[in-house]
Amino acid sequence: MGLSEFELIEQFFLRPGCVREDVLLGVGDDCALLRIPAGEDMAVTVDTLVETVHFHPGTDPEKLGHKSLAVNLSDLAAMGAVPAWVTLALTLPVSDSAWLAAFMRGFSALANRHRVQLIGGDTTRGPLTISVQAHGFVPPGKALTRHSARAGDRIGVTGTLGDAGLALLQMAGGGVPGRWLRERLETPMPRLASGLALRDLASAAIDISDGLLADLGHICRRSGAGARVELPKLPLSQEVEMHVKKSGDWSLPLTAGDDYELCFTVPPEFCARIEERLDRIEGGFAWIGVIEKDEGMRCFAADGRQIETSQSGYQHFQSA
Amino acid sequence: MGLSEFELIEQFFLRPGCVREDVLLGVGDDCALLRIPAGEDMAVTVDTLVETVHFHPGTDPEKLGHKSLAVNLSDLAAMGAVPAWVTLALTLPVSDSAWLAAFMRGFSALANRHRVQLIGGDTTRGPLTISVQAHGFVPPGKALTRHSARAGDRIGVTGTLGDAGLALLQMAGGGVPGRWLRERLETPMPRLASGLALRDLASAAIDISDGLLADLGHICRRSGAGARVELPKLPLSQEVEMHVKKSGDWSLPLTAGDDYELCFTVPPEFCARIEERLDRIEGGFAWIGVIEKDEGMRCFAADGRQIETSQSGYQHFQSA
Repeated sequence: MGLSEFELIEQFFLRPGCVREDVLLGVGDDCALLRIPAGEDMAVTVDTLVETVHFHPGTDPEKLGHKSLAVNLSDLAAMGAVPAWVTLALTLPVSDSAWLAAFMRGFSALANRHRVQLIGGDTTRGPLTISVQAHGFVPPGKALTRHSARAGDRIGVTGTLGDAGLALLQMAGGGVPGRWLRERLETPMPRLASGLALRDLASAAIDISDGLLADLGHICRRSGAGARVELPKLPLSQEVEMHVKKSGDWSLPLTAGDDYELCFTVPPEFCARIEERLDRIEGGFAWIGVIEKDEGMRCFAADGRQIETSQSGYQHFQSA
Repeated sequence: MGLSEFELIEQFFLRPGCVREDVLLGVGDDCALLRIPAGEDMAVTVDTLVETVHFHPGTDPEKLGHKSLAVNLSDLAAMGAVPAWVTLALTLPVSDSAWLAAFMRGFSALANRHRVQLIGGDTTRGPLTISVQAHGFVPPGKALTRHSARAGDRIGVTGTLGDAGLALLQMAGGGVPGRWLRERLETPMPRLASGLALRDLASAAIDISDGLLADLGHICRRSGAGARVELPKLPLSQEVEMHVKKSGDWSLPLTAGDDYELCFTVPPEFCARIEERLDRIEGGFAWIGVIEKDEGMRCFAADGRQIETSQSGYQHFQSA
């Protein structure tokens, strides 16, 4: 059954989940109207998921609703920001009430968990495309950026690496990944608490959406530095550890995308305090290497041998 | 020639046009970082244009760049807000440098004209879809909304109605619209100055993207009121006036979308001051009717006869 755009808005987007006092007007006028907090800077990010490019046709809409918000909250986490408001631009081939209800269930559950309010959006007809924009706040001078890593800083990573990549690899081979791997791929949890804990201590941070080497590479390039990564120190789930042992191939934890963990750098004098803070947070973290003066990424095995690795992570446009 | 996502960002999105002091970090980190002004409320809007739904394949990319920003600035105008920042989520089938350069030329020219800075975005591969989100500011209590029109308020409209619709109609019939009509369709000018001039005087405002009756209908429904519209008072270009005379059909100025003029309501005691202000602004305006207690839209011809009209404007999802 088709619904008009106005009916869609009434049924799915007007019913507020989380209601914030700073939202003066939410969905339903020309613009949302927001009371902005005094003495804070605003962080803004936008990410788009396109069917067949970022997810398979037939993906569970509830999980897709979760993930389309999670990838944006992950960017806020990487800035050390506290999320507040989101907009949703949804392009749909048909207006399918059951699909939309499930999508909004996943989206709203994650939004409510982090006190995030949906303040506006646009619903259009066309190939399935989901563009979410998230707004958060951070006190002036406290935001975590990519360009301030210095030689000697230690490199940390939250959670585990390569799980989403392994799930995709198993599915591509016709297999069915276990529950843990599927959750890591389909319902990643943005590391917002870890991002907050990094404030005042980390010199740089980024979220790992394109693969560790690609994203750590962004920090290095923007900071005019390089990195030494110790492969045995990479935090791996049992599943990925087994895969690496069997195949001898480190490319999953190094270059697979979609992990949404945080990679960050910390001056040596702050490392003990980082350990105190992050060890208490779900997912934990690991030190995996050190920032060096010389540009480029260098990976070392347990026996001290340097391993040749490709730095390229997931890219939407491959060079011709 | 294909470009990677990083090359795209470097070539097309990093070079700043307008540079605002309140942008601490623009394109290139996990988030943009913005210094938010004290004592202002923020207005946020997002609009998506999808190829074949909102524009024809082969549309001039420079004009598309202009229009994709203009439709969002038009929403800010309808709130009486001053624009500041925009993000751009661009889904492209291939990375075509010439297309992108032209698109950004059109986008940036309009952005610079209104001191708007591009602060972030996302570039993905997929069917051509353009989602722009705009942020603007308005002093607390000054925003123009849809829900405060009262019986007795006069109804005003900026510019002229039905031009974009006539251009589309001529193109659908294999004709080539004249330069004026094409400009109205392809490079609409957001009525930002008019929106500012309405502050403190208008009781409600909306931008006409879905057709006059549909959008005025939103004001009426949200305000719990109705409207009387005098057809002879509708502001028409020569081209649309001729079309209405020839065909005897008022549906173009009443229901065609894509005009991006402002429709607003004003208490009688403020009408003289509105005339003083708006008569000086490019495009001008006209009084077209009055808000009434009884719900519904009623249109009257020159001889006082009530004309039957369909209220439905452009809708992305038609009821099944």
